Amino acid sequence: MIDRLMEKIRETQNPTVVGLDPRLNMIPDYIKEEAYAKYGKTPAGAAEAFWQFNKAIIDAVYDLIPAVKPQVAMYEMYGTAGMEAYIKTIEYARSKGLVIIGDIKRSDIASTAEAYAAGHIGRAVVEDEEYEIFKEDFVTLNPYLGVESIEPYFGHMKKYDKGIVVLVKTSNPGSGQIQDLPAGPEGKPLYEIVGGLLEEWGADFRGKYGYSDVLAVVGATHPEQGKRLREVLPHTFFLVPGYGAQGATAEDLRGCFDANGEGAIVNSSRGIIAAWKKEKYAAQVGDDWAQASRLAVLEMKEDLNRVLK
Amino acid sequence: MIDRLMEKIRETQNPTVVGLDPRLNMIPDYIKEEAYAKYGKTPAGAAEAFWQFNKAIIDAVYDLIPAVKPQVAMYEMYGTAGMEAYIKTIEYARSKGLVIIGDIKRSDIASTAEAYAAGHIGRAVVEDEEYEIFKEDFVTLNPYLGVESIEPYFGHMKKYDKGIVVLVKTSNPGSGQIQDLPAGPEGKPLYEIVGGLLEEWGADFRGKYGYSDVLAVVGATHPEQGKRLREVLPHTFFLVPGYGAQGATAEDLRGCFDANGEGAIVNSSRGIIAAWKKEKYAAQVGDDWAQASRLAVLEMKEDLNRVLK
Repeated sequence: MIDRLMEKIRETQNPTVVGLDPRLNMIPDYIKEEAYAKYGKTPAGAAEAFWQFNKAIIDAVYDLIPAVKPQVAMYEMYGTAGMEAYIKTIEYARSKGLVIIGDIKRSDIASTAEAYAAGHIGRAVVEDEEYEIFKEDFVTLNPYLGVESIEPYFGHMKKYDKGIVVLVKTSNPGSGQIQDLPAGPEGKPLYEIVGGLLEEWGADFRGKYGYSDVLAVVGATHPEQGKRLREVLPHTFFLVPGYGAQGATAEDLRGCFDANGEGAIVNSSRGIIAAWKKEKYAAQVGDDWAQASRLAVLEMKEDLNRVLK
Repeated sequence: MIDRLMEKIRETQNPTVVGLDPRLNMIPDYIKEEAYAKYGKTPAGAAEAFWQFNKAIIDAVYDLIPAVKPQVAMYEMYGTAGMEAYIKTIEYARSKGLVIIGDIKRSDIASTAEAYAAGHIGRAVVEDEEYEIFKEDFVTLNPYLGVESIEPYFGHMKKYDKGIVVLVKTSNPGSGQIQDLPAGPEGKPLYEIVGGLLEEWGADFRGKYGYSDVLAVVGATHPEQGKRLREVLPHTFFLVPGYGAQGATAEDLRGCFDANGEGAIVNSSRGIIAAWKKEKYAAQVGDDWAQASRLAVLEMKEDLNRVLK
């Protein structure tokens, strides 16, 4: 699946993943009103508004981007109706040829991790029947529980050509509280030790461009650390959050890319999906609000390519 | 909520939480057949079987135990139908007066963590309406992202009298890969540093018995480490997995309890919910399979109380 992601990035010349993390205050009123008219001001109403919003954004940007990253928390908050909207969003994005990174950050072990793996990137079994439930191509995982929280995904990754994205160094200001602790016999920062584990875990999953199906989350908000990780993790592709709304610039994340300008994909959520609320776009697109997301994608693409050339 | 949990443990004289982690191979055939007859061999059929199974077990044991811990992964694997069964299970257990520990092990930051918090222990908002979605009393969380992944729960904990249970030292054999790394300026094991953070985070949430609403997961499979953590985390109540199926004995987890025989609650999942499959119980209960769970709870209660006296 890493090969497919890299090829999509080459095709679109755009190492951008659009984070589909809707909140009600990002959604145009007419969409919400239609949803509430159908389902009331209920979780089902919110979920319907999310789905219509996502669909319009996917329609506006799918030809410009390689991938989308729906954040499951936003949907899960609204219970089963929300989860239904999460799945419909994934199915629709897939129908448009996009790679799907499910931002689920799950963490569990043994049979429990196996259940997450089966539901998200594998198949859920009911007696002799198999079902594809969440249909992501990649899912994000938290490594705190160690290898037993990662290995249960390997079988499904092999069988269904899927991947995982493991938290290494996250973009939040307080990520260092645990991740930066000097650790192990040599006192390396913990995130670097975790990164080393990813290189091991990914060894059996390398694709034809040298990167593996075991990706790392490396926040753009820590440029020096990103650069260092790029050097010591030569086979680990990075998913880079923190651009835009969280304050990182294209220059900040240059170090997450390799010498060929590859090896990373940059996430933007609010900056793209809520672009219609920004005056500079609103003035250009009039009522066609989703076109603001298209303009924001084009601007981000240009910004990233400027530093990658 | 920690006070309520401790009072329920005193009332029942039983520091046991029953893990409701169903798998289809644990469920009596007649329940599955009825479920498949209604919904087919589908995710909805599996979910219906889970729900009927859980209900029977709750009916058989609710008066003997303080709490249940449904493991969301088992339900999430079956998508929205599974999540519906998770919620129905929680509602039913609550109607029987049980404390609910949602084993969700979520990990995210800022607005995303806020969404998990709102959905699981707070309220999901749709305009001027508020909804209680998952209805847990406690949820388990993973601390790798640092304080920004924990703080968003605090407001809901205060407002709705809820708690969180943070992974400190987990029960899996490979938990040491990251959690045991010597870390920080003094080279303490990482889990001990994380434990120290829990004491800080819990300082505003202490109940009348000295323990706080910020609990720790401490695996019974590491007795020395459990004992040490009990000493250095005097205000942190422990949720202790690993008893029974994972190999830990009552003696192994004695050190997780304080001098009064309090300060911890021990989880058993398979050992209780799949008890009907063990010959020693099956012979006693005949067709009334859920009574095997009752016998297993009574046996575990006795076993724990033996070492706690």
